Amino acid sequence: MSISVSGAMTTPSKVVFIGAGNLAWNIAPAIDSLKDFEVVQVVARTLESARSVSCRLANAQPLCSTDLIDSTADVYIIAVGDSDIPLISARLAGINTSAIWAHTSGSISLDTLTPLGKNIGVFYPMQTFSKGREISIDSVPFFIEGSNDSVTRQLTAIARQLSDSVTLLSGDDRTLLHAAAVFACNFTNHLLAISSELLSHRGISFDVMKPLVEETVIKAFATGPDNGQTGPARRGDISTINRHADIIGQQYARLYRLLSDSIINRFKENV
Amino acid sequence: MSISVSGAMTTPSKVVFIGAGNLAWNIAPAIDSLKDFEVVQVVARTLESARSVSCRLANAQPLCSTDLIDSTADVYIIAVGDSDIPLISARLAGINTSAIWAHTSGSISLDTLTPLGKNIGVFYPMQTFSKGREISIDSVPFFIEGSNDSVTRQLTAIARQLSDSVTLLSGDDRTLLHAAAVFACNFTNHLLAISSELLSHRGISFDVMKPLVEETVIKAFATGPDNGQTGPARRGDISTINRHADIIGQQYARLYRLLSDSIINRFKENV
Repeated sequence: MSISVSGAMTTPSKVVFIGAGNLAWNIAPAIDSLKDFEVVQVVARTLESARSVSCRLANAQPLCSTDLIDSTADVYIIAVGDSDIPLISARLAGINTSAIWAHTSGSISLDTLTPLGKNIGVFYPMQTFSKGREISIDSVPFFIEGSNDSVTRQLTAIARQLSDSVTLLSGDDRTLLHAAAVFACNFTNHLLAISSELLSHRGISFDVMKPLVEETVIKAFATGPDNGQTGPARRGDISTINRHADIIGQQYARLYRLLSDSIINRFKENV
Repeated sequence: MSISVSGAMTTPSKVVFIGAGNLAWNIAPAIDSLKDFEVVQVVARTLESARSVSCRLANAQPLCSTDLIDSTADVYIIAVGDSDIPLISARLAGINTSAIWAHTSGSISLDTLTPLGKNIGVFYPMQTFSKGREISIDSVPFFIEGSNDSVTRQLTAIARQLSDSVTLLSGDDRTLLHAAAVFACNFTNHLLAISSELLSHRGISFDVMKPLVEETVIKAFATGPDNGQTGPARRGDISTINRHADIIGQQYARLYRLLSDSIINRFKENV
């Protein structure tokens, strides 16, 4: 099996999406819109969920069971929660061992897909997706890993048609990349949630934080985050740190102190 | 003393800036550009530092000592580090007790300025400032507190000429606001620094994080941060959390686990 990414008259390669979550909602339509690819099925736990993605595609069948999965597809994209990938891999073992099987996870190792065949890979778009929020896919960085050169080449070719940023990455490097993304995205978002909650106690709208947060992000990418570090911990201002830890309440005081200590340690040699 | 904010023929009110750091570099020119105000002096520890701000102003004298401070100014703005505010307040006591004296800190109480006179206030622009980075002042939220109605009214009038977002805030509320800003800005920036460092270990440019971080911030303000929370902790995916804590090294593992626990606790009732 070989996927054409250039031929004008070839039949589009058939793609099956297993999973109909936030990622599939964004990525399946992008692949379906490529000339050489056609998403033929979307499989989810419920028909309603499968339809939420298949209704965004030209001609895809929604399924709520793996029993009717097309065994003649060229590419199977497993876009389910990390903890479900081993289950899916075991359940679909042997269905189509010559096809490409790829998962979309930042943290699951490639060999989790071994039961599915020899052409296995990782197709990881590093972005925070939500159903209902259209993302500009061409700026999403994709990270690719393949069990052999052919898989790597073909997954890379698909990703390059979707995005300007496509990188080959080993499993270990991808795990570290994912951990770095958890800091930059998931944990950052949680700090914003805490900030918003503290403001709400005094009836202040979280919107007042917007210029500050936007400038923080712009500056971090323009000059490097360490160069833009400001605040009480950066100044070693212990009395403000204590006052803040008191006023925000026990629930967040430990986190406030650990983050402050981490900043203080980072700049210790320069103070 | 009363400051005219509308009179066409009045003499501009004289403003002295004490401090020539990141905040003064941005705010002093904005005030100097107002029709009714003129920054006449900038005082700093060194003449070089004072000049870095005064050179951005129409006609201000740089000073490296408080001895020559103009005792006939209308407004004194104390834009020094938080820990220096009590020292400045003690040193300048009695110079001009009828003028307005305001500090620009999010976390220092108003009464720290009591030695300076009865017309004291807080003029707090909530933004992360850097010398060399021009900020659009009109979107910076200003928070005002005054020791009496006249001070409050006059500081508010100045802020309203600079910004579209001006709010009166008590000292306690300002401390909480500042703590919330530390979470949203200083701590967020530190997480970005950790993310950047982790990537650098594998030779990956921090720039790959930009689309993810930008989308995280856009989503947080569009739908509220809790609604956009994703990631291993949000899914209760303990095996990924353990794998990340292992791979990032001891230095950041404790912070990773505390932030993950904080997210897990936040969503516990909804899981």
